[in-house]
Amino acid sequence: MLEKVDLDRKLSKEEFKSLWPPLREKLGEAQRMTKELGIPVMIVFEGWDGAGKGTLMNELIQALDPRGFEVHNVKPDQERLWPPMRRFFQTTPPRGKIGIYNRSWYRRILDGEESDRVFDEITSFERQLAQDGYCIIKLFLHISKKEQRKRLKALEENHATSWRVTQEDWENHRRYDEIAQRVERMIHRTDKGHAPWTLVESHQREYATIKIAQTVLEGLERAVKEAQGRAQSPRVVSSGLGVERALKTSIFKSLDMDQSLSEETYKKELKECQRRLRDVQYSLYKVRRPLVIVFEGMDAAGKGGCIKRLTQNLDPRGYQVVPTSAPNDWERAHHYLWRFWESFPKGGHVGIYDRSWYGRVLVERIEGFCSEEEWRRAFGEINEMERQWADFGAIIVKFWLHVTPDEQLKRFKERQEDPLKRWKITDEDWRNREKWGLYEEAAEEMFMRTSTPEAPWVLVEGNCKRLARVKVLKEVLKRAETLLNI
Amino acid sequence: MLEKVDLDRKLSKEEFKSLWPPLREKLGEAQRMTKELGIPVMIVFEGWDGAGKGTLMNELIQALDPRGFEVHNVKPDQERLWPPMRRFFQTTPPRGKIGIYNRSWYRRILDGEESDRVFDEITSFERQLAQDGYCIIKLFLHISKKEQRKRLKALEENHATSWRVTQEDWENHRRYDEIAQRVERMIHRTDKGHAPWTLVESHQREYATIKIAQTVLEGLERAVKEAQGRAQSPRVVSSGLGVERALKTSIFKSLDMDQSLSEETYKKELKECQRRLRDVQYSLYKVRRPLVIVFEGMDAAGKGGCIKRLTQNLDPRGYQVVPTSAPNDWERAHHYLWRFWESFPKGGHVGIYDRSWYGRVLVERIEGFCSEEEWRRAFGEINEMERQWADFGAIIVKFWLHVTPDEQLKRFKERQEDPLKRWKITDEDWRNREKWGLYEEAAEEMFMRTSTPEAPWVLVEGNCKRLARVKVLKEVLKRAETLLNI
Repeated sequence: MLEKVDLDRKLSKEEFKSLWPPLREKLGEAQRMTKELGIPVMIVFEGWDGAGKGTLMNELIQALDPRGFEVHNVKPDQERLWPPMRRFFQTTPPRGKIGIYNRSWYRRILDGEESDRVFDEITSFERQLAQDGYCIIKLFLHISKKEQRKRLKALEENHATSWRVTQEDWENHRRYDEIAQRVERMIHRTDKGHAPWTLVESHQREYATIKIAQTVLEGLERAVKEAQGRAQSPRVVSSGLGVERALKTSIFKSLDMDQSLSEETYKKELKECQRRLRDVQYSLYKVRRPLVIVFEGMDAAGKGGCIKRLTQNLDPRGYQVVPTSAPNDWERAHHYLWRFWESFPKGGHVGIYDRSWYGRVLVERIEGFCSEEEWRRAFGEINEMERQWADFGAIIVKFWLHVTPDEQLKRFKERQEDPLKRWKITDEDWRNREKWGLYEEAAEEMFMRTSTPEAPWVLVEGNCKRLARVKVLKEVLKRAETLLNI
Repeated sequence: MLEKVDLDRKLSKEEFKSLWPPLREKLGEAQRMTKELGIPVMIVFEGWDGAGKGTLMNELIQALDPRGFEVHNVKPDQERLWPPMRRFFQTTPPRGKIGIYNRSWYRRILDGEESDRVFDEITSFERQLAQDGYCIIKLFLHISKKEQRKRLKALEENHATSWRVTQEDWENHRRYDEIAQRVERMIHRTDKGHAPWTLVESHQREYATIKIAQTVLEGLERAVKEAQGRAQSPRVVSSGLGVERALKTSIFKSLDMDQSLSEETYKKELKECQRRLRDVQYSLYKVRRPLVIVFEGMDAAGKGGCIKRLTQNLDPRGYQVVPTSAPNDWERAHHYLWRFWESFPKGGHVGIYDRSWYGRVLVERIEGFCSEEEWRRAFGEINEMERQWADFGAIIVKFWLHVTPDEQLKRFKERQEDPLKRWKITDEDWRNREKWGLYEEAAEEMFMRTSTPEAPWVLVEGNCKRLARVKVLKEVLKRAETLLNI
């Protein structure tokens, strides 16, 4: 997922100047509330070398009452005279105070110590503290390899700072892609509702500063609300400052929605893909591995059409399309993941989900069908489930079919005018359309928290149906053929 | 710990007859409440071959409304066409119903599949369900190797049942001790506040039936109370039927409190032990492993005297005695385990705790200084902490110093009469004495849930101070010398 993050987001000087002062004030206020309520807070700064941890931490600190926080610089644990987590337990802030960590207990993982035991120790640490009322906020400061190189060079060329760049920094720079994989694994295994990660796009100081401040503010306000035992609102806390709008994530903007495919190329490629897919189906069967394909996306983005092309040439005894609508009473009487465990394809079979368990963090979140605590917990629960499936040997690929609002409107109108398709469009579709921004926001958070190496999200530009269909088939083939060594 | 369980507990026919009918009625009532409140319940029967799972499950079922439960017989998963946890997710009961499992998701572990991944899958399964409101009750039916042999023989000799005894059963019987270790590891890694294990002494059907019924009743009542959002009482739920008294655990009764040691032997052995302990201290230092020794026990059981003999001949630069009293304000401002992480001895050093983190599940539980949810959660948290210490290389041994009420009274009086010792006795000691039964009960649950292979409890007969002191020293030596290969 890291490679999909748009790192070039910026705020204009004016935007920054108008956002920062009120945000600082709000932060100070939130800090006073946590103090009053005796909530201990831990804020973790991790990130690439050269991402600006020191600078950005400093910006945040400006907004806080200096009597209320302590900064901990975490060096590698070289002596190892105590069990690894001890030094972190020692620095946990007392109730009402804030601990800020420049690097943290994640250092071990990022330095390469990636065993199950280390993950166990860390998740146990955070869970124990969260259950005791600790508010835990984790930031990962992200820059590209190119940007890192530029920054290391700049430091090196300056007499005052050249000593800060070591041989090891360059060594790590060369291994950027490998470390990026490690970062992803780390984030996905430790991204919990009670201790979530936030990725901070850190190419521009202003943007990163506001994003960090907003993330911390949201975390504190959530903790305050929980401590006050108030009913949870289904939406994230809003600072009311228009910060969310200014920070607006833009994974969707990075999509080139004007691409298209000619009818001729489409026919040729479709045929070829469908032929290969049939081979994949037999290979799956031979080795008894299941293939799980998930479709989510905006209404009228063309999920049905993709699924049709996907299954057209498959052996019908070996696949099942599972349409997911609102749970019925019997399903509601179980855990929300129950029906998806139930419909999971057996070894050798293909399960195609037309909408899925991700409804929990999309429609259920937006419509308030579950509590905030529940949908926040869901990211981790879903990752656990998909990891178990992958461990079993399942091949998983998840598609988000995207259309622009204009294209959606065009399709809605076509459906209304076509008597054969009119049933497809309901009042709900029109209502959902009004919540476009909320869906984009929820979808982006979902990509961040659940696109894992074993179950990645693929975003599909859906304005051209032909292009979308071929892309879906190719991506399924790529993933399946790689994992099956065909 | 399994070997310390007194398996010969019995109820007289009269006791059984007086307890069973009202308990059945209460169970039926509790079942109706869970149904009304929509609480889903899962009851797991695991245990040794021949422990009587079928029979005892049947007894329990008699007390339940048959429309409200379903029994699942769990066979080995031979085909493996789905991820392992799927079949268990499928059988989760809907809200308001009870699922009873004859063997369960623990089968994999007991059959030898003991990887971190399996433990992760299981703990994730139970946690996800518990967070969704599921009530999970896990029973392990325990019999001795001798009893198992007797029962297998009996089955074999009966024409009607001989087919039930397989070659594999005998094979497992021969490996009883090895499997017992596995059972202990399994119980300790999966004994959570939200899904606790209960060990059922199963030599006598009547005793086991009542214990199972009482455990299930307590579990249901706790779930009902939680669902109703009522304030938690610090003590366990009581059925008010005198069942607890009848079931009274008797680890303490198995102690021979009349043992004693002559002055002469004492002197000789003490000297020899102290000499070896000094060697142990140097060996520890050489390999930089810490040694943690915990003392808990009744008031006036002689903890101080033991600690004195333990340290008499040690190099004072290498050990520290940590007295634990009620937490001060600063300590209270942190997680309750914080101060113990803080005082943990560094590699090569000895830390001796005069009372410890176990206060959470002893005095804090009994006096209501923490909520029931908190002390129940503490067992798992403590196990996690000790496991991290052991993984790091720490050698851990925990002593419970026991005296009889009579002996305690004698010592209290002596203290009061001796002007030099009068400070040692306070009103609180007299008050605690009145809670003898509660302390025994809490201590026994503590042994069960926290005596792990890496951090075992040792019970010390403390009526004869000389004997207790020598036993403590010998046990420390045994454990340290074994783990250090001296």
